[in-house]
Amino acid sequence: MAVKTIQWKNNHVVMLDQRLLPGKEVYRAYRDYTEVARAIRDMVIRGAPAIGVAAAMGVALGVVWVKGKNFDREIERIFRTLAKTRPTAANLFWALERMRKIYIEKRSLGIETVKRLLKEEALKIFEEDIAANRLLGKFGAQLLRSPSRVLTHCNAGALATAGYGTALGVIRAMKESGKEVEVLVDETRPFLQGARLTAWELKKEKIPVTLLTDNMVGYLMQHSKVDAVVVGCDRVAANGDVANKIGTYGIAVLARRHNVPFYVAGPTSSIDLKCSSGAEVPIEQRNSREVSHIFGRPITPRGVHILNPAFDITDHELISAIITEKGVITPPFQQNIRTHVRHQ
Amino acid sequence: MAVKTIQWKNNHVVMLDQRLLPGKEVYRAYRDYTEVARAIRDMVIRGAPAIGVAAAMGVALGVVWVKGKNFDREIERIFRTLAKTRPTAANLFWALERMRKIYIEKRSLGIETVKRLLKEEALKIFEEDIAANRLLGKFGAQLLRSPSRVLTHCNAGALATAGYGTALGVIRAMKESGKEVEVLVDETRPFLQGARLTAWELKKEKIPVTLLTDNMVGYLMQHSKVDAVVVGCDRVAANGDVANKIGTYGIAVLARRHNVPFYVAGPTSSIDLKCSSGAEVPIEQRNSREVSHIFGRPITPRGVHILNPAFDITDHELISAIITEKGVITPPFQQNIRTHVRHQ
Repeated sequence: MAVKTIQWKNNHVVMLDQRLLPGKEVYRAYRDYTEVARAIRDMVIRGAPAIGVAAAMGVALGVVWVKGKNFDREIERIFRTLAKTRPTAANLFWALERMRKIYIEKRSLGIETVKRLLKEEALKIFEEDIAANRLLGKFGAQLLRSPSRVLTHCNAGALATAGYGTALGVIRAMKESGKEVEVLVDETRPFLQGARLTAWELKKEKIPVTLLTDNMVGYLMQHSKVDAVVVGCDRVAANGDVANKIGTYGIAVLARRHNVPFYVAGPTSSIDLKCSSGAEVPIEQRNSREVSHIFGRPITPRGVHILNPAFDITDHELISAIITEKGVITPPFQQNIRTHVRHQ
Repeated sequence: MAVKTIQWKNNHVVMLDQRLLPGKEVYRAYRDYTEVARAIRDMVIRGAPAIGVAAAMGVALGVVWVKGKNFDREIERIFRTLAKTRPTAANLFWALERMRKIYIEKRSLGIETVKRLLKEEALKIFEEDIAANRLLGKFGAQLLRSPSRVLTHCNAGALATAGYGTALGVIRAMKESGKEVEVLVDETRPFLQGARLTAWELKKEKIPVTLLTDNMVGYLMQHSKVDAVVVGCDRVAANGDVANKIGTYGIAVLARRHNVPFYVAGPTSSIDLKCSSGAEVPIEQRNSREVSHIFGRPITPRGVHILNPAFDITDHELISAIITEKGVITPPFQQNIRTHVRHQ
């Protein structure tokens, strides 16, 4: 029943190919880190926490076949290749940093030990992500009344993480704690994560879900159909600005206008204190074909100029609270995020 | 070169099937008013002014074959059938009202004369719509600086009218008056009028156009890429609230936050003084399959609940000006619209 987004199996990384959902459930086994990097770039797997796990497993996979004398050069190549896949996801760099730390601290113990420790670290990142989601889910669930109609965007579910989910983790925790919850999700063009992935996850869990197009959010809020917004995050800056899937900002602006609380859910591994504000977060620009074609068919004349920024920045002043595995961060974010991250 | 959205030809109504654009340019000939009604409902033709023209031609077509003794009953059936097609478009009811007035005032002149006069009235509505667009285009073009990057939504072009267009009429008039203009258009899910129709029209005119998904508007405004928004309208209430394609409201909210002027362009036939505010405008709810399927393929699991309101209401306080063939209406709309409509 549980969604198996990514697994480590017999020195292979196995991923559910999310591009084919909800039509087909295809699991792909990878034995080469460059294939893992391509899978991340091509969105076989997506969602910042899941990307972090995939990158960590990619490193563990990459070193399996590396010979002793090339180890330093090869592992740097592996880090570089994986780091170049998706520029916005904080968890990608955070996970690679954790892997690098193991490598640097333990290399004196010998190559085979380092290989084992890197695999263990990747699995630890995987396990910790699920644990963090369960914890943040509980904190988030406490913020929301029963019954609630919660709007979410994109997919911040089990498919975007090692399991359980961030925004959908909050939803799952609400259900587990006996709260009534109904989810509204926009389809999230161009990749349709809302329609394809979130609707699929929630239907499996028998949580009521209603699908809308991205441009219907204003209509719903005008008609008082949304009690709260809960979204995930790809990177949280030190001032509380949040990079998340394109369209998040517009929803936050509407939520503010209609006095709907706007919550961001994510593990502390999504927080990047080195970015002082959202302006410093690199925004990935993806291939125009993701917009111009659907199911391989063009939706617009050939040669039309196309934009495809994959993320936008939501100003911290539009955010009611940020929910992590350590608790709930409320404004003023500038000071509270720093304290929160350092808190044990 | 000019787009032939709808024509009257040898007692047939000929329409360009907009569902197939931009891939195919297919013209369909209708000789039965019920087929015209179905074409309006199924969006072979769409856009409030074009719907008005199609309905008027539908009446003229419907009476061609009606025998004298059934005339009163039959024409009522024709009016009823056409009035039921699209509930939001003011121009539909306005056009049917004009046709009814001819019928009531001229019936004493005999059936054959009434039939001829109804055809003439439909053609007059067609011609007047183009003339109104050209006029409002000129008024609108004066409001916009050169160069301007204008965001539009959906299609308020030649395809949405008898020709030339309302929002795109303003764009065309800018170009004709030598102003530099670049258009940004969102794809406008679920029917993709922006991607399919507006991009197609503008490409034909060699006006630079950039396509984005509906959820990228906030990103563009954050990056100061939009100088003005110009959209069409399906109905304008007496207080200036505007019903237009779903998503218009969200764009207006973002425009306000970023101090981007938000203009609505439409002929006075879109103004409905009988609706005191937007709350009184009926919002059409369309088939869920328009959202759940693209090119006949599902984008979401079977059985997911789906919303598909076709329009939303933009509060008058978010609108900088309404541009009609009589000039530019500025706030306070409550009083200025009434004066404007009565003005010769």
